Formats: sequence, C-alpha cells, structure tokens
Amino acid sequence: MTSSKIDLEARSKAKELIRKSFEALVNSIVSKERPLLVIPKRTLSNTIYDYKHKLLLLGPDVQKRTLLNINEAKKFTQTLLMASIIYESLVNNEYPTIRDLYYRGKHTISYRTLDGKRVSENTWDEQRESDGVIRDLEVYLGVLREELLILSKEKGKVVGNLVIRSGDDVIDLSRMGHGAYAIEPTPDLIEFIDVDAEYVLVVEKDAVFQQLHRYGFWKKYKAILVTSAGQPDRATRRFVRRLSDEYKLPVYVLTDSDPYGFYIYSVFKVGSITLSYESERLATPRAKFIGVSMTDVFGDEVFKKIVSESSARKALEEVAPGITELAPKKPYLSSSERKNFVIKAKARDLERAVELVGYRVAEVCTEDSDAKSKIKRKAGTTGYPWLLTPEWVRELCIFFNTLSKVEIEAMAGKGLRFLADEYIPAKISTGDYIE
Amino acid sequence: MTSSKIDLEARSKAKELIRKSFEALVNSIVSKERPLLVIPKRTLSNTIYDYKHKLLLLGPDVQKRTLLNINEAKKFTQTLLMASIIYESLVNNEYPTIRDLYYRGKHTISYRTLDGKRVSENTWDEQRESDGVIRDLEVYLGVLREELLILSKEKGKVVGNLVIRSGDDVIDLSRMGHGAYAIEPTPDLIEFIDVDAEYVLVVEKDAVFQQLHRYGFWKKYKAILVTSAGQPDRATRRFVRRLSDEYKLPVYVLTDSDPYGFYIYSVFKVGSITLSYESERLATPRAKFIGVSMTDVFGDEVFKKIVSESSARKALEEVAPGITELAPKKPYLSSSERKNFVIKAKARDLERAVELVGYRVAEVCTEDSDAKSKIKRKAGTTGYPWLLTPEWVRELCIFFNTLSKVEIEAMAGKGLRFLADEYIPAKISTGDYIE
Repeated sequence: MTSSKIDLEARSKAKELIRKSFEALVNSIVSKERPLLVIPKRTLSNTIYDYKHKLLLLGPDVQKRTLLNINEAKKFTQTLLMASIIYESLVNNEYPTIRDLYYRGKHTISYRTLDGKRVSENTWDEQRESDGVIRDLEVYLGVLREELLILSKEKGKVVGNLVIRSGDDVIDLSRMGHGAYAIEPTPDLIEFIDVDAEYVLVVEKDAVFQQLHRYGFWKKYKAILVTSAGQPDRATRRFVRRLSDEYKLPVYVLTDSDPYGFYIYSVFKVGSITLSYESERLATPRAKFIGVSMTDVFGDEVFKKIVSESSARKALEEVAPGITELAPKKPYLSSSERKNFVIKAKARDLERAVELVGYRVAEVCTEDSDAKSKIKRKAGTTGYPWLLTPEWVRELCIFFNTLSKVEIEAMAGKGLRFLADEYIPAKISTGDYIE
Repeated sequence: MTSSKIDLEARSKAKELIRKSFEALVNSIVSKERPLLVIPKRTLSNTIYDYKHKLLLLGPDVQKRTLLNINEAKKFTQTLLMASIIYESLVNNEYPTIRDLYYRGKHTISYRTLDGKRVSENTWDEQRESDGVIRDLEVYLGVLREELLILSKEKGKVVGNLVIRSGDDVIDLSRMGHGAYAIEPTPDLIEFIDVDAEYVLVVEKDAVFQQLHRYGFWKKYKAILVTSAGQPDRATRRFVRRLSDEYKLPVYVLTDSDPYGFYIYSVFKVGSITLSYESERLATPRAKFIGVSMTDVFGDEVFKKIVSESSARKALEEVAPGITELAPKKPYLSSSERKNFVIKAKARDLERAVELVGYRVAEVCTEDSDAKSKIKRKAGTTGYPWLLTPEWVRELCIFFNTLSKVEIEAMAGKGLRFLADEYIPAKISTGDYIE
C-alpha cells in the first residue's frame, strides 16, 4: 500500500469515530434493550437560516429509528448496513465513492414472513436511497463523508501564491505553469503551509479561469484564483471556506449575470437548501458577489423607472426595506456593447429567478405578458431569506424587467485587459460588490 | 504583462502564420484581382477513414470563397473578420476563447442595397456560426486553434512519473499529493522533460481516477494516470496522443461498459466524425480499450448462443469476417455480482449503439420486441468502419441481446483492490483488451 501518512491517520480517526458512535447501540443489543438510533432530521422544516451567522443550519428535530418497528426497520437496517460497509472500507484501505457504496451494499434479502410466505427485498434499488443513508450517517456521526475517506469526482482548480501539503507532498500552487492544481476530494486533509495573497477570486467558468490565469492576473493582483467549473462541488466549497476562515482572506465570486450564476454565489455563501447540514462546514458566509451584476450591465435606470411608480415602490420596500435608498449605479457597458452581449432569458431562468427572490418581486418588476404568465407557475414562492436584501432584489428586479442575461465571456469579449485590469480591480477597490 | 516566454514565442509564430497565409489574398486585392479563399471542405462526404493509419482525415475537396459572389460574400467576410479578430488578440496579448471570439465579432452591419433600401445584417447570430468560421480557419491555416492561443475550458487531469515544463515552470506530476495536475488548454506548448512509465491509463470517470490515484495505483504499476472526466476535450486528447507518439507508451482506455463509454474510446482512438480535421493531431490510433467490456461482464456465452443459429452467424460474419473464430472469453464477474451491478439500457443507449456498429448487427442480436422497435428508427445506419471488427461487433451484439450496461464503479464496488490489483493488471498482462 502506498497510502499517505495523513490518509492513514484520517482512517484510524474515522474508524474510531464509527466504533464509538455505535458502541451504545451494540451495548443496548447485548443487554437486550430496544436498539435505537437517534439522528438529526434533515427535512426542510428542520432547516433554519441563522441570520446572525448567515448560515443554513439543522434545527433541533431528531428522528428515531429502531429495528423493532415495522416502519423503521428498513431504514434502521440500511443505516447499519452502510455504516458497516464504510467501516470495512476504512479497515481495508479502500477509497469508496458514493456510487460504489451503492453497489457494495446492493443485494437482495430473502426471508419468510410470519405466515410462511417467502419474500425478497433489495437493500436499496436507487442510488438516491443509499445517498440518503450516507447523509444520515454524516449527521449522526457529525462529520463530512470526506472524513470517512469517501471520495467523489472533483472539478475545482486553483492557482496562486499558496504552498500546501497534500498527502506526502509539498506543492507550490504558484508553479503550475499554464495548468492548474486540481483540488483533492478531501480538502480538510490539506495543510496550508504558506499563503501570500490579498484575496480569493472564485470564477464560475473554467474558460474564464484559464484566461485570467494565462494573463497572469493572480500574480499581478496577488490573488488566489479558483474555479468551480460550474455548480461548485463540496471540495471546492470547503477549500474556499478554509481560506476564508484560516487566513481571513476576502472571497469574491465572479459568475455569469443570470439566475444560475446568482445561485452559484448563493451556494458558496450560504449552502444548498437541501443539504443544510453541510453548510456549517462548506459555506463561506463572508463571500461577496463581485459580478457580473445586472446593474453592471444596465446601471440602475431601469430600476429607477420601476420604483417611480408608487405601488411598485411600496411593494418592493415591503420585501426589502431600504431598496429605494440604494446608491445609484453606473453600468460598465455602453448601450451598443449591451446590444451585442445581452442574451434573452429562457423560461427556466425566469423560474430560477423567482425561486431566488420570490414571486412578489417577479410580479412587480415583470412587464412582458408572456413572461408574466410563465412566472405565475411559481406563485406562492417566497425566495431565499438571505437574498431578500435591497441589493439582490434590485438585481433580480432588473432581470425580471429586461428578461436579459449576460455571460462573463461578454466582459472578456470587451477585452481581457478590460476584465482583468479594469472591471475586477475597480469593483474590488470601490467596494462595488454585493454581500 | 506576465505571459510566459513560451507563450510569447507561440504568439509571434501564430501572427507570422496568419500574416503569411493572407498575404496572397491582400496581394490579389492590391492588384485588383478577384479576392479568393480556398479552404479544405469539412463536410462528411469529404471525411475519409484511413484504414492504414487508422485515422479520420479530410479528403481532397476544397471550397472556394470570394467576396464577389452573392452566395459566398457573407462567409468570405466572416472568415476575414474572424482572422482579423484573432490576429488582433495575438497582437494585444489576449487569450480569447471561442465564446468570446463570438462576442468580439458580433455586431450589426448596416448598408444600402443597389436600389437604395437600408438593410441591417448581423455578422453572426449564433456561436455555431462563429465556431464554424474558426474551424475553417484551422483547416485553412493548417493549425489547431490552440496554437493561435485560443483557450477553452479544460477537464483533463494527470498524475504519474512525468516531469514537464509548462509556461515558465518545471512541474513534477508525481508530486501532486492527493490532488492532480489539471492539463493546460494548449498541450502542444508543454515540454516533456522526463517520463518514467510503462503505460498510460486513461480513465473516463474522474471519481474512479481519484480512487486509483489515492490507492497509489500509478506508483505501484508505473503508469501515467489520466482522466478525461467524461467526453474527452481536445487538450486531453492531444496530451495523450503526444505521450503515445513521443514516448511510444501503450495507451489503455477504461470506460463504463455502455455505448457512451465505447464512444469515448472511439473519440480517443479515431476522433470525432464531425471534426475529422482535428484527428490527425488529436487521435491516438494505437489506443487500446481495456474495458469494461461486455465480455468482461457476461463472458461469451450469450454470443455463442446467438451465433449457434446459422442465419445470425452468416449475417455477423458478413459484417465482421472472423467473428465466429474469436477466442473464448470468461467473465470477471460472477452471476450474482452481475445481478447486482447490471443496469438496464435506455433507449438512447440503444440508438448510440446502433450508430457504433450499424443497424444490421442490432437487428440480428436484439431479441426483445420493445428494443427491436426502438432500433428500427435507426434502420439504414451502417456504423463506424473502425468498429466493424470481430471484437467490437461481438461486444455490441452482447449489448443488444442483454440490453445491459455496467459502470466502472461496479468493478470498484467489488473492491478497489480487485479493480486496481486484479482486473486492470490481468487485462494488460494477458492482452485481454480490444484494439
């Protein structure tokens, strides 16, 4: 075996944790008590947005699972099956993925019912089921699955003045040539040795990361340049969070100017609503949205026109108090550039946008009748609490009104120099970002 | 500017090439001749599979474009527009992507027709159009767009006993810790300094790459481990090809056992049929398919049963002479493992499979009536010439008959040790792969 020392340590820590966490259960079986698992609930109703820490957290609700209840027996058994497979993997120096844990555990159990019928049942049929069990184990054990040496595919990349230890190697991330360092799936096992940077710039798109990297952006501006290559995975989020926590580096997120881009920022900052238990470790509450914002493209004229109408003003003030007192914003694009760069929003962009800030904002700001009928499908949506701020509501209001989106590449199309030497530095130095 | 020396050299080479290639055109305009561009045709009918070199190549057909022909004027203008934008990017030390080249060139041209009407026309509306123009320029100039410093997103990663120079850095790819080296988008600018490996293993799935890497597979077996993270992009293909060419390293490709996995192998080996002009530089004709093959899963019993029927035997012998004399194959999975690991093929898998080896094979080997009706949609498909070999036809015949697919993760589910220390080494040492 050629496992690194750090993996061997992580392995024995994880084994110990599993052993200890299930000890009480084993004892209860030995002393003929009712075997019972108490696991925090991962339901939406037990997901709470903590305004103070700006994080999604699990609430106090728990679920109880026992073997001796017909409704809980399957879940109970699945949980123990998965725990034992993971434990075995740790013992055998394996590195399973959630996909092969699904395969490892998948088999058919045959038994006779009390009235003598022969019945067969699968441990699980879909990966959705086994994934849910892994998540239960994460909250039960209070760890991320990565700490159990469960791996996954990983898209995140990084370059910058940053020296790390990973496995048995010391790696200088400022010496990656034209390539980059692909972040490992277990970023908690990385040791930061030396960091010499002013801030972290997270770029949604790999192609834009490549351009900025090649242009020498991170050298010139002492930045650590990260790309999530689309929707960020867990390791990239954890990596960014650690830089924010341990080095107090400002984190700026650069995405397309569209609801999907805004959502990527939201995942970095607060976490994903269905996996709130991860947020405490994976989210970066101090992350700032540097752009591309709708106001970067359109300025605030569209918005001013909307709120000049008193009922719209009143409605938006109700959603996001203070919205009419926002500082004015000038666009970074001329009207002819806008004309060439803007893309028409699609139905799914509209729906996504309603999910972000709620139906009320959409209703007030949309003028187009076709779009109006599309957003109606989402009536009743209230939006994410952390996006119901004056700045974000103004952004989405302009989106609903213009039905437009703009890619980061459009900014690079105006010239890589513009993106690298004007747009990004100006946004940072003038504080022109959204928290 | 912090561009590397190698980029500066590449830049001046590319500028010189563009200048020289358009010199004749400029001269013809100066001397009042008809300006004419002669560009190799990229059509399917001008795409030839070269059996000797095992490559897709462009045939001898050319297209002529002149400004003074109403049908060719737009294409002619688009070509010159794109060439000038790329040239400017080179002069200005930019690193455009195909996406921002689209934005850079996109604008509206207004003019009056001979009868005085005012007309507006966009240079291009969709990226499809501008991409086509870039491809024309690639074949016109006889370079890959990467040599013009056009960047793109890049998914490929590598680890192994390999020291490279990229940009101004020397990078030891055996010292990446648990992470990996993300290949640059311009792999021709990489200098291989030291390679100490027996072969290259290309893994379709990033998660499996992570597992094998973490397990120390490449150290133990002196392999260079590459992942394409799904459909391979150009840079990953070029990188693998260079290792094959320059170090004569055997290249083994490991994919899921399904038509999409087989197609990924085909792209590595021969290239993509719509972009044949790239294949000469990007394809790796000596690449071998190590698995997971249908015969690895099912052995050859299913197939033997099919060809025991004389009309089927005759039909398959016609498609792939010698198919009935193939050596017998034992499966690597037991029947109970098969039961847990096999996934039911979907309609699109079936259609993809017909594209690979043609309708005749599908018709002969499929028994299921529902599947029979699905493949009928693809009647007339003849398959890729390079896959009409006894080995591949047997593989796909088993697929059509069992309507099953198996992921690499299933092999890892049987144990990472099995995948790393039994399956892969056995396949290589016994020559149990498909060319």
